[in-house]
Amino acid sequence: MTATLSSQETRLLARQNSITNTAGYSGNNLQANLLILPSKHSQDFHNLCLRNPVSCPLLGISSIPGNPHKITPSACIRNHHDFDIRTDCPSYRVYKHGKCIAANKPDLLDLWSTTDNSSSSEGYTAFLIGCSFSFESALCNTIPPLTPRHQVTNTIVPMYRTSLPLLPSGIFTNATVTVSMRPYHESDVQRVRDITRPYLATHGEPVDWGWDAVKRLGIRDIHDPDFGDRVEFKEGEVPVFWACGVTPQMAVEAAGDKIDGLVFAHEPGNMLVTDWVVEDLERLKGGIAAFQEYLN
Amino acid sequence: MTATLSSQETRLLARQNSITNTAGYSGNNLQANLLILPSKHSQDFHNLCLRNPVSCPLLGISSIPGNPHKITPSACIRNHHDFDIRTDCPSYRVYKHGKCIAANKPDLLDLWSTTDNSSSSEGYTAFLIGCSFSFESALCNTIPPLTPRHQVTNTIVPMYRTSLPLLPSGIFTNATVTVSMRPYHESDVQRVRDITRPYLATHGEPVDWGWDAVKRLGIRDIHDPDFGDRVEFKEGEVPVFWACGVTPQMAVEAAGDKIDGLVFAHEPGNMLVTDWVVEDLERLKGGIAAFQEYLN
Repeated sequence: MTATLSSQETRLLARQNSITNTAGYSGNNLQANLLILPSKHSQDFHNLCLRNPVSCPLLGISSIPGNPHKITPSACIRNHHDFDIRTDCPSYRVYKHGKCIAANKPDLLDLWSTTDNSSSSEGYTAFLIGCSFSFESALCNTIPPLTPRHQVTNTIVPMYRTSLPLLPSGIFTNATVTVSMRPYHESDVQRVRDITRPYLATHGEPVDWGWDAVKRLGIRDIHDPDFGDRVEFKEGEVPVFWACGVTPQMAVEAAGDKIDGLVFAHEPGNMLVTDWVVEDLERLKGGIAAFQEYLN
Repeated sequence: MTATLSSQETRLLARQNSITNTAGYSGNNLQANLLILPSKHSQDFHNLCLRNPVSCPLLGISSIPGNPHKITPSACIRNHHDFDIRTDCPSYRVYKHGKCIAANKPDLLDLWSTTDNSSSSEGYTAFLIGCSFSFESALCNTIPPLTPRHQVTNTIVPMYRTSLPLLPSGIFTNATVTVSMRPYHESDVQRVRDITRPYLATHGEPVDWGWDAVKRLGIRDIHDPDFGDRVEFKEGEVPVFWACGVTPQMAVEAAGDKIDGLVFAHEPGNMLVTDWVVEDLERLKGGIAAFQEYLN
């Protein structure tokens, strides 16, 4: 019963590297995309998230540059005495000059040392970004269910690069939005929009839908996703597109060697499980600024 | 010395209809674009702003549907006993089914009655949206100054419709971003970006720049703005584009007859002067959710 594990229990399993995919774990908790940058770039990246909250909804930020234990707001990770963002995802990726140079790393302890700050006097800052797992549960649990196709086929949701610009912030320029796609019958689109609308902190309602949207979004080939697996369309179905948590990694790629130092991210599907629960989404809709400690 | 008037003094002049343009009044205070909708549509419009904060940065919302006196956060308009959003802009516009049906109205008292709610049992909700006046002061006051061209020529900033989608929310679909444009020498663009970056609550840094941006944004003709006045480019200058507070009105136009009831807006240039001051911008960068009362 992985769904009933507490968030702390799932994080401990991830730390021990005894799980490789967090899908289905701690069912009521929000899972997060992770991006860790040299702190000198954190202001630009923070503003990028604030300017593009549909693609990059913030669930938490590490409070102190270089400190891998404390996250703001504290409701995101309550027990900071037993939390380490360098180990508590099952698996990590490493980027240099915008390129992925290592994948499937079980932890970041060798690359982010809290005693040796020789590579950067300020250390790293971690950003936790909402992911679509939460609204997918809502789609599955509605009556009649609107279960996403890739869950039925047990494949990875198809994702596409688009021509939709991510609004620039500092060194983060020339990036575009990446979208995920779930096919639905045309007559279900309004229900799908209504159900996912309240999930503002986890990408919210679709950014576009219908066959015309493929061209509007500048998608190369709907049958050949840039990431994830292809899914089939049934008679009467149209593609429905949501902003996707891969977008921040695309922003890092686009920034290229303007980023001075290493960048770390979670391995796709290997998310950080937070202490936020679905019931927190209403309070999170205006962003984590709603939590008083945010600017203290 | 209009610049040294308090925000309350400027609002009283606006209420008495003794001014017709708020530019230059209460210099340190943030001025707001105004949009007032039937309260039944306020959730969709609120989400539209949260999803598109660069175009539609929220500075305040009326706290109680149908009440034209109280704004949340209260720091936006402190003295609610002597404030009325139906009179305290110099001049208003009225929209019906997405079309402007009246302009240059001195007040809204005949259309929004607080005693007669026959047209809508819930009344209206007002949204105050950041405007670019604040960052223009910063551009003028830097050394050497980067005074926007339209201020030198004493004309209205040129504005353009773009093909950049406003991310949809509920009934607000198929709208696009409107941008304002200020020409700068290519070598000044980085400084212009740096100076306007902190003004997240008032559109922030440019969304795009350079001659290539004209095509990327789908602008029809840079020398023929859709709103405002044409400006000349000097040798070596390129267009620099910011999101623009006209965008919410474009969203209302696009929603058309999906809006049940009247919509009110300020007359361009005739803004609502708020009690926010430039020094509040840091706290406003994460949105008005940073103010605790927001969700109470």
